[in-house]
Amino acid sequence: MKVTTQTEHFTNPLYLESGRILEPYDLTYETYGALNSDKSNVVVVCHALTGSHHAAGTYEGDIKPGWWDGMIGDGKPIDTQKYFVICVNVIGSCFGSTGPMSEMYPTSEPYRLKFPVITISDMVKAQRILFDRIGIHHAHAVIGGSMGGMQALCFAIEHPNFAKKHIVLASTYATQPWAIAFNKVAREAVIKDPAFQNGLYDPKEIRENGFPGFATGRMCGHISYLSPTSMQTKFGREYVETDGLYELFGRFQIERYLDYNGMNFVQWFDPLSFLYITKAINIFDATRNYDSLEDSLGRINSEMYLYAFKSDLLFLPEEMKKIETTLHNIGKSNLVYYEEVDSNYGHDAFLVELDKFAHSVTKALEEER
Amino acid sequence: MKVTTQTEHFTNPLYLESGRILEPYDLTYETYGALNSDKSNVVVVCHALTGSHHAAGTYEGDIKPGWWDGMIGDGKPIDTQKYFVICVNVIGSCFGSTGPMSEMYPTSEPYRLKFPVITISDMVKAQRILFDRIGIHHAHAVIGGSMGGMQALCFAIEHPNFAKKHIVLASTYATQPWAIAFNKVAREAVIKDPAFQNGLYDPKEIRENGFPGFATGRMCGHISYLSPTSMQTKFGREYVETDGLYELFGRFQIERYLDYNGMNFVQWFDPLSFLYITKAINIFDATRNYDSLEDSLGRINSEMYLYAFKSDLLFLPEEMKKIETTLHNIGKSNLVYYEEVDSNYGHDAFLVELDKFAHSVTKALEEER
Repeated sequence: MKVTTQTEHFTNPLYLESGRILEPYDLTYETYGALNSDKSNVVVVCHALTGSHHAAGTYEGDIKPGWWDGMIGDGKPIDTQKYFVICVNVIGSCFGSTGPMSEMYPTSEPYRLKFPVITISDMVKAQRILFDRIGIHHAHAVIGGSMGGMQALCFAIEHPNFAKKHIVLASTYATQPWAIAFNKVAREAVIKDPAFQNGLYDPKEIRENGFPGFATGRMCGHISYLSPTSMQTKFGREYVETDGLYELFGRFQIERYLDYNGMNFVQWFDPLSFLYITKAINIFDATRNYDSLEDSLGRINSEMYLYAFKSDLLFLPEEMKKIETTLHNIGKSNLVYYEEVDSNYGHDAFLVELDKFAHSVTKALEEER
Repeated sequence: MKVTTQTEHFTNPLYLESGRILEPYDLTYETYGALNSDKSNVVVVCHALTGSHHAAGTYEGDIKPGWWDGMIGDGKPIDTQKYFVICVNVIGSCFGSTGPMSEMYPTSEPYRLKFPVITISDMVKAQRILFDRIGIHHAHAVIGGSMGGMQALCFAIEHPNFAKKHIVLASTYATQPWAIAFNKVAREAVIKDPAFQNGLYDPKEIRENGFPGFATGRMCGHISYLSPTSMQTKFGREYVETDGLYELFGRFQIERYLDYNGMNFVQWFDPLSFLYITKAINIFDATRNYDSLEDSLGRINSEMYLYAFKSDLLFLPEEMKKIETTLHNIGKSNLVYYEEVDSNYGHDAFLVELDKFAHSVTKALEEER
């Protein structure tokens, strides 16, 4: 599936949860499949921290498929012969939508640390504004994993009449201190590296010369995305052949893997976007503007499909379960489906072990309640 | 209990597993209680990564008790009215025993990166040499948690006639990639910080000016020492009162806790010791010099008491369980006792939730099999 990226420019201000505004701003997105005549086949896919609008297919002349290519396409679990799929790059990110390295109008300088703190609600609000612009006022479903799941939940609570179904994977109702701690280590590693230059780094320079703290931060993220079992299966205690066991800096294969992914990350993600998006994740709390989780989830009047992953050590199954239990407690049992996917992979199972839940997601999209 | 520290100096070389030697070297230790006439009441306590020989009591004029003061003392679980307890600072550490910042004889310069890589076996061997020097040729028990547990297991396998009982808490038979990955992030944060100066840092200077990467590394360790539940209980989603929720660098309480512990760590631990000891932990593998775990554990002929902690996310209960299962499989069921302590605290439960296992440890020390 060959795909192209589109960008919409908005001159009206985006009113943020913080009280600040973003103006003007861009939103970059991709669509897959065709919108049907009554516009009833829209499936919104929300991406995670380092994801992008490029969820499926490949670009002309490129070979790298989108991050959920196994899920989205003709005949795939989210079938583009049936659904019109749209995925928007979140504000704050670095793949086209306005973020901290975008020009701060009317200057031609990037915002950098002058960029406002954004929230999951802000990301969702921006998407709705984009959808309105392109004539989409309702969706069949909103689906996302991890931070994408936060967006899906936020759609359900704050935009209760927008979509009929919300599918939340490997996510939470409010980020817990355990996940905040992982982000903390990653954020500290970035901020304290002289290469960060208090936010004044030259993007080209860090790609050329490296940004060790950013790489280290990414490594920390990788721990939380995997699990003891998946690391055991992938790497065991294999040692890098050319390294000596008794060399202080000799490495295990798991270390080489982390080195590679850390260094590589600096080439394709922006440090300030990383800080802003992890901040949005940290402060995500579906109860913030409500009296309680009951009150917050009480606004939901759409079908909720919740997929937790047994070995997810970033957002624990019990956090997902709490959403289900709460919906039950407030009399919305008829709206909720909960599944704990039996996976040893860890958090990233929602990206990797599609065979474990894709069939169920297809059913969720199709079933009539 | 007022305690004092002693140091023994050794001029004979210490032959290391790597093939290198350490000469001369010092070993610093503390003892609590009195050695009985037939020297049958010795309990060796082994410390963890950042621990020291100061396991119990307080120094004259000081108020800070040793790291396992709740366990060791008159009338305490390891009762010094009954036992003569000895705890030795491991080689490679920074509290008196020879480590990377010790003078490299005959120069008066520190070893720094010329210090040899040491192993858990080396730490244990050095302790045995010290014990021989002070006239202790047998012990009633060897006990330790985390890296201390690795030493206790190593005593049991490699010095099978030294102690009658070995008590291993919150540890493993071989460090798994999950734990290596946590160490990796911490080590990278240290090494890549310019303050490290490729190992040529001035200890006074880093204490005065800070060493952000070392602090960040410590933060990463703290994640692995706690658990989602203990963080939830301690910190929840409490935000630092004076920080704004929508400030990019505003902090949750969990973040402030990590900041504090990270910065503080630089004041009392040495970065090179940290690298050498984490290396020793990473390469710990009780099977390395044997055909298999069965072969390795087959050397054991003492009582083994294994305490795993349910929520330990650094060394998983299944790793401890594997020691038990293997001992069973090779016909040593009569020697092994396994307990999974019901704790939500995480790895550090062996330091913190003494009431959950101390009684059982006392029984282990006392029981006649």
